[in-house]
Amino acid sequence: MSLPKTMQAAVLGEPGTLAVTTLPVPRVGPEDVLVQVRRASLCGTDLKIRSRHFFKDGGPPAGEFVPGHEYAGVVAAVGSAVDELRVGDRVVTEAHRGCTRCANCLAGAYTDCLNYGLRHTGHRAQGMTVNGGFAQYALNHVATLHRLPDTVDFDEAVVLSTVGTVMHAFDVLDTLLVGSTVAVVGPGPIGLLAAQVARELGATVALVGTREARLAIGKSFGADLVVNSREQDAVAAVREATDGIGADIVLECSGAPSAVDDALRMAKRSGKVVLVGFFEQPVQADLNHAVMNGISIQTVRGEGTGSLARAVALAARGRLRTAELVTHHFALSDVSEAFDTYAERRGNAIKVMLDISEDPESIRAR
Amino acid sequence: MSLPKTMQAAVLGEPGTLAVTTLPVPRVGPEDVLVQVRRASLCGTDLKIRSRHFFKDGGPPAGEFVPGHEYAGVVAAVGSAVDELRVGDRVVTEAHRGCTRCANCLAGAYTDCLNYGLRHTGHRAQGMTVNGGFAQYALNHVATLHRLPDTVDFDEAVVLSTVGTVMHAFDVLDTLLVGSTVAVVGPGPIGLLAAQVARELGATVALVGTREARLAIGKSFGADLVVNSREQDAVAAVREATDGIGADIVLECSGAPSAVDDALRMAKRSGKVVLVGFFEQPVQADLNHAVMNGISIQTVRGEGTGSLARAVALAARGRLRTAELVTHHFALSDVSEAFDTYAERRGNAIKVMLDISEDPESIRAR
Amino acid sequence: MSLPKTMQAAVLGEPGTLAVTTLPVPRVGPEDVLVQVRRASLCGTDLKIRSRHFFKDGGPPAGEFVPGHEYAGVVAAVGSAVDELRVGDRVVTEAHRGCTRCANCLAGAYTDCLNYGLRHTGHRAQGMTVNGGFAQYALNHVATLHRLPDTVDFDEAVVLSTVGTVMHAFDVLDTLLVGSTVAVVGPGPIGLLAAQVARELGATVALVGTREARLAIGKSFGADLVVNSREQDAVAAVREATDGIGADIVLECSGAPSAVDDALRMAKRSGKVVLVGFFEQPVQADLNHAVMNGISIQTVRGEGTGSLARAVALAARGRLRTAELVTHHFALSDVSEAFDTYAERRGNAIKVMLDISEDPESIRAR
Amino acid sequence: MSLPKTMQAAVLGEPGTLAVTTLPVPRVGPEDVLVQVRRASLCGTDLKIRSRHFFKDGGPPAGEFVPGHEYAGVVAAVGSAVDELRVGDRVVTEAHRGCTRCANCLAGAYTDCLNYGLRHTGHRAQGMTVNGGFAQYALNHVATLHRLPDTVDFDEAVVLSTVGTVMHAFDVLDTLLVGSTVAVVGPGPIGLLAAQVARELGATVALVGTREARLAIGKSFGADLVVNSREQDAVAAVREATDGIGADIVLECSGAPSAVDDALRMAKRSGKVVLVGFFEQPVQADLNHAVMNGISIQTVRGEGTGSLARAVALAARGRLRTAELVTHHFALSDVSEAFDTYAERRGNAIKVMLDISEDPESIRAR
Repeated sequence: MSLPKTMQAAVLGEPGTLAVTTLPVPRVGPEDVLVQVRRASLCGTDLKIRSRHFFKDGGPPAGEFVPGHEYAGVVAAVGSAVDELRVGDRVVTEAHRGCTRCANCLAGAYTDCLNYGLRHTGHRAQGMTVNGGFAQYALNHVATLHRLPDTVDFDEAVVLSTVGTVMHAFDVLDTLLVGSTVAVVGPGPIGLLAAQVARELGATVALVGTREARLAIGKSFGADLVVNSREQDAVAAVREATDGIGADIVLECSGAPSAVDDALRMAKRSGKVVLVGFFEQPVQADLNHAVMNGISIQTVRGEGTGSLARAVALAARGRLRTAELVTHHFALSDVSEAFDTYAERRGNAIKVMLDISEDPESIRAR
Repeated sequence: MSLPKTMQAAVLGEPGTLAVTTLPVPRVGPEDVLVQVRRASLCGTDLKIRSRHFFKDGGPPAGEFVPGHEYAGVVAAVGSAVDELRVGDRVVTEAHRGCTRCANCLAGAYTDCLNYGLRHTGHRAQGMTVNGGFAQYALNHVATLHRLPDTVDFDEAVVLSTVGTVMHAFDVLDTLLVGSTVAVVGPGPIGLLAAQVARELGATVALVGTREARLAIGKSFGADLVVNSREQDAVAAVREATDGIGADIVLECSGAPSAVDDALRMAKRSGKVVLVGFFEQPVQADLNHAVMNGISIQTVRGEGTGSLARAVALAARGRLRTAELVTHHFALSDVSEAFDTYAERRGNAIKVMLDISEDPESIRAR
Repeated sequence: MSLPKTMQAAVLGEPGTLAVTTLPVPRVGPEDVLVQVRRASLCGTDLKIRSRHFFKDGGPPAGEFVPGHEYAGVVAAVGSAVDELRVGDRVVTEAHRGCTRCANCLAGAYTDCLNYGLRHTGHRAQGMTVNGGFAQYALNHVATLHRLPDTVDFDEAVVLSTVGTVMHAFDVLDTLLVGSTVAVVGPGPIGLLAAQVARELGATVALVGTREARLAIGKSFGADLVVNSREQDAVAAVREATDGIGADIVLECSGAPSAVDDALRMAKRSGKVVLVGFFEQPVQADLNHAVMNGISIQTVRGEGTGSLARAVALAARGRLRTAELVTHHFALSDVSEAFDTYAERRGNAIKVMLDISEDPESIRAR
Repeated sequence: MSLPKTMQAAVLGEPGTLAVTTLPVPRVGPEDVLVQVRRASLCGTDLKIRSRHFFKDGGPPAGEFVPGHEYAGVVAAVGSAVDELRVGDRVVTEAHRGCTRCANCLAGAYTDCLNYGLRHTGHRAQGMTVNGGFAQYALNHVATLHRLPDTVDFDEAVVLSTVGTVMHAFDVLDTLLVGSTVAVVGPGPIGLLAAQVARELGATVALVGTREARLAIGKSFGADLVVNSREQDAVAAVREATDGIGADIVLECSGAPSAVDDALRMAKRSGKVVLVGFFEQPVQADLNHAVMNGISIQTVRGEGTGSLARAVALAARGRLRTAELVTHHFALSDVSEAFDTYAERRGNAIKVMLDISEDPESIRAR
C-alpha cells in the first residue's frame, strides 16, 4: 500500500465549527501504526470539543486539530518496533495511551494517567490531546489497536468503542455477572449496550428510561424489565422486581442529576453503583443512604485496561447486536451535518457515523 | 402435605457396603427445611464415604448414616423461623452450612469453616457430617436451599450442584471471563461443565482429555479446541492456540498428578491455575516455573458462597446443557448397583442418579 | 460467678429521655454470652436513639429498651454451644450479628444484613434492635465478642469499637496502606483514630479540620500535616503536599455536606474516597469530577467483618493511643448527664464513658 | 556534573567468571536516566548469571555484559523527556521495565511482561537482559527509579530492592496485614525482611529456619516466634501458636522443596501461601491438602508494581532495620571475591555489597 502525502480531515475551527481541510498524512514513529480510517462515530465528548468547552485553555488554534476517538479502519503502515500488526489488518482503536511511567499507568490504570495531556511523557488521547479519527488517516500507538475478526464489520467495530466502556463498567466490579441483578438507568448507547452485555453475561436486567423507542430497543436487546420513569416509580419498580432487596449492581448512564439518588435507592444493601454518565452540573444525592447501606459508587469515563479486547471477543462470537444503534451515516465532507444531527437527535439519532471509506455521493444516496 | 413417620434411606454399612433401611423422618428445627428428595447423584466423595476412607476416625456406626450431598426435591416442611421457602417449593441443595461464627464463616468462606464437623457449633456437611440425601427425606438448613424455576427438571437440578463447583472455580478469580482464554484439563462432569460455562460467559475454551467420547461431549458443549493428550502434546497445543502466550486461566479438573505440571505450563505469565480435582497422591510439579512466571494456584473443593445461585440463574435461562451428563438412573433400593456402576464407569457412566420419586420398577423399566 | 436476678439498666423513655431502672438479667441462649458490662461509650447514633429519630416506627415502648453498642466487660455466663470463651474472660463487643442466611451474610457482609432488624432470622444490632450495653449486663452472640489482652484496659477496649470502624474503612480498600498518602477530613474520634492507624500502618497522613484542639491531638497522633480549613484551602493544601497529584485515599469523617466535594478534589486520579461520616442532609457534590478522574467512593457505617479483631491486635501490641480521646466518665445512674455532656460537647467532650464497674460516688469523685 | 567517556564495569566472562574492564559510559535516550552507581548487592540470580545457567541460549559474548540488578546511586544525567528527576538526586532502582504494550504490562503486571527479553519492544531487565549496576554508571528507564530521602544511606537503599520483593509478596494478597498471623519459612534476606515488615504492618509473625544465627536476627527484627526446624516440628509449632487453626498467610522463602508441603500444612483453611523462593528442582507437595482446605498459592519473583515505592516509604520513616543484613563490602575491582564470598556464605555472608563510590583501598581497609 503506497501512502499519499496528504489527506482529508475534519478540523476544529472557531468555537462551534468544524471544517474539512487537507493535512499531511501523519508520519509513523517506531511504536506507531497508521490507520486508514473507514468509519468513525460521534460521542458526547465530541460536542464539547466542537464547542471548545472541553478545553480549559481554549484549545488548539483553528484549522489544525482533528477530533474523533471512536473509529476503526485498516492498518496502512507500521513503525519499526511494531510486530503485533501488519499492513492490511483491520483494527478498532482505543482512545487512551498512557505515559507508561506514572504510578497509575504502572499499576494498569492508564486511562487515569497522571500525566494526562502531557505529550512529552508519551500520553496521548486520540481526538482529545492528539489528532484523532475524523480523517482519512490517523496515527495510533500500537497498544491502542485491536485486530478485528472478519465477521465484524466497521460499523459494529466502531460501536465496540462504546462496548469497551460498558465492559469497563463491569470490569471494575471484579466479579462475574451471572446470577446478579443489574439495573441500568439511561437507555443511550451505553445504557442499551450495558443491558445487552449484562444479559449476555448471565445477569437479570432492568432498564430505566423515559423514551419508549429506546426502551423498546432495550427490550429487544434482552432487558428482562423496562421501566418508563415518566410513567412509574422506577425505584419502586426495581425494588419490586428484586423481591424488595434492590439490585446488586446499578449502572447510572443517563447523566441526569437526580439519577444518582435513584440509583442509590435501587441498589441493595452493599450493592454497587457505577456512574458511567457525565453530569453537566453538581449532583445532589442522599449519600447518607449510601453510608447506612454500605453502597459503593464507582466511576467510569470510558474504556479501561483490557475492556475493548473483551468487547471484540464478544463480537467475534456474534453475540452482540449493534446495528439497531447505528442510525445515520455521513460522508467526512458532511461532518458538520453529522454533528448537528447527533447534537439535536434528528431522526432519533443514536450513533451517527462518518463513513470515510466511500465517496460522499454513495453515502448520501443510501 | 402430611408427613409420614418413617422413610426409606440408604445407610452406610460395613466398609464398602450400603444398605437400604427404614429410618424416622427427621424433625425440623427452627431454621430447618425438610426436603422430600426426588433425585440425588453420586460423586467421587461418595465412593470414599462408602469405603470409609473419607473418615479419619472410621466413621459412624453401621446402619445409621445416610450419605448423599447432591440432591434436589420438594419442600415438605419448614421450621418456625423460615420465611424464605414454603411447602411445595422445588429446591436444590448445597452441601455446606458453616458454623456462622468462626473467622472464615464470618468472612463469607463458609465452605472452609474452621469448625468443620463440629456439630454443636452449627456446622453441617450434608451426607458427610450429617445425614444427606440418599433417602426419601433430608433435613437442610434453610441457607443451603435454592428455589428452582419450573423449567429446570430434577435431573438438571442435581447437576447444578456440580455447576456450583464450576462457578466457584471461576468466582475465585474475581473477574469477568469474557475475552479470556481458558484451558480445562480433565473432561469429567466438572471439566465438561466448566468448558460449557466458560464458553457461555464469553471465554475461548480449550479442553484437554484422554477419552474421545468425553472430548466429543466437550466439543458439543462449545469447547473451541479439544486436545487428546494421548495423541498430542497438550501443553504445546494450548500454547499454540494462544499465539504462544499461554492461557489466561487453567482449570485442573483431572486429579492426575502430572496434570499440575501441565497446567502450569499451559498458563501465561501471570496466569491463574485453579485446582478443582482431588489428588489421590502427592503431586510433583515444577513450582519454580510458577514462581518465575508469576502464576498463581487457587483451589476449589466444591461450591462456594453464592456459586449455586449463579448456576441456578444460568439454568433458569435455559443456557445450560446437562442431559448429556446424566447417563444412569437407579431406584433408591438399587443404591449399591448405582455405586458400582459409577465406581466402575459401567456403560460410560458420567452422572449416576438415584431417582427417589418413582417406584423402582418403573425406573428399571426405562 | 453466681448471677443476680436483676440489674440496673438505662432505658429509653419518652422521646429525648432516658431513665435508669431495674430489669431482669437476660437469659443466655445456646450461642449467647452474658457480658457484665464494665465500660460503655456514647456515639452519635445513641443521640438519635434517645431522640427516637433513629426509629422509623417510633421505636419501642418507653421503659423497656436498653441502648448502647460500644462496650466492654467480663464474661459472666456462656451458652451451651459456646466453647470460644469462658466465664471471667475480658471482652469487647461488636454491634452487629447477622442473620447468617441472607446473601450478604453468607458472603461475609453481615453488617449489611438483608434481614436487618428481623429478630426471628437471628439478626441482632446491640443497642439498636436488641438491648445493648448501657446496663450492668448485656447479652451478645458469641460471634460478636473478642477476648482482650490484659494490657488493654476497659477504656481503651471501648474505644476499639471505634477503631473497628476505622479498620473497616481501610479494609474495604483491599490493599496495604504503607507508602500511600491518606487525607482524613474531620478530626472527631473516627478521624483522629484513622489518622493514627493510617500512620501506624505506614501511610503519610494529612488531617483536615476546623478546631485547633482536635488538630493538635491529630498532630500528636502522628499526622504529617494538619490543615485548619477555616484558615487555608484544604484541597489546595492536600494537593500541594502530594506534589499536585492528590491523595491516594481520602477518608471523609466529618459528615459536613460540602466535605464530599472537597474529598473528591483532594483525591488523585483513580483515587479512593471512603465516606465514614453520617450526613444529616442530602449532599451536593461535583460527581462529574469523580467520573472524569476515575475516583471511587466507598462507604462505611461501622465495623465490618474482621475489623474489630484487627483493632484488638494493634492495641495488644501497645501501638494505639486512645487515652486522649476519653474525656469524661459517668456512672450509669448519671446516664442523662452523660448524654447531655456528649451532645453539647461540654468540656470539649470527645468520648464520654459510662463506668459501670464502679460505684457512682467514686466516679463522681474523680 | 561533567560525564566521563568511559567507566569501570564488571563484565561476564567465560562461564563462571567475571572481569573488570573499561566500557563506554552509556548514552542517555529520551526517557532514560544515567545513574552513577554507589552501591550494588549480589543476589542468587547473579550467581546463575555468572555460571550462565540463567541464559537458555548461553548468554551474551564474554567481555560485554554487565550484571547487577540491585543498586543505588546518584543521577548523573537525564533524558530529554524526563521531568521526574534531576541530576544529583539520590535514587534506588527497580530491575524491570516492561514493554508497556503487552496485555500484562497494560494491566499493571510489568514484571510479568509477555515480551520479556525482547529489547525492541522496550522491555529491559537490568543486569539480566540489558546492562546492569555492577559498574560505575548504569542506564535506567526513568520509571525504574525512586528518589531516596536523605536519611536512607546507600547500603540501606540497596537492601530496599529486597524489601520491594517482600512488599510485593504482601501486595498480592490484596489486604491489610494488621491482625493477621504470618509464618515465614526461610530466614535468608527475604525471609528476615518479611518477618520485619509483617511485624511492622501489624501482623503476628512466626519465623522458621535451621540456622540459629539467622533466627536470632529474626527475633531481633520482631518475630514473635522463631522455630528451628532441625529441633522441632515446625508445622506443629506454627499450628500450636495459632490455636490449632494455622497461619492466615505463609511465605515460603527458603526454596527447599519440602518447604512447600510444610507451608501448606502451616496454613489455615482458606489460608494463603506465597512462594517467594526459587526452587532448584521439581517440588513434591500434597496439593490435595490445599484443595481440601481452600488454600491458595501465589508466587513472587521479585518486586512488583509499586512495591519498591512502599519499601522506600517505610525506610523514610526510619522504620526498617537493614544494617544487620549487610555483612560485607567489596570494591568493584574485587567483584570476583565478592561473588565467591556470597556463593560460599563465607563469614556468614548475608548481603554482600559492591561499594563503587569509594576507592578500593579504603574499602579493603575497613
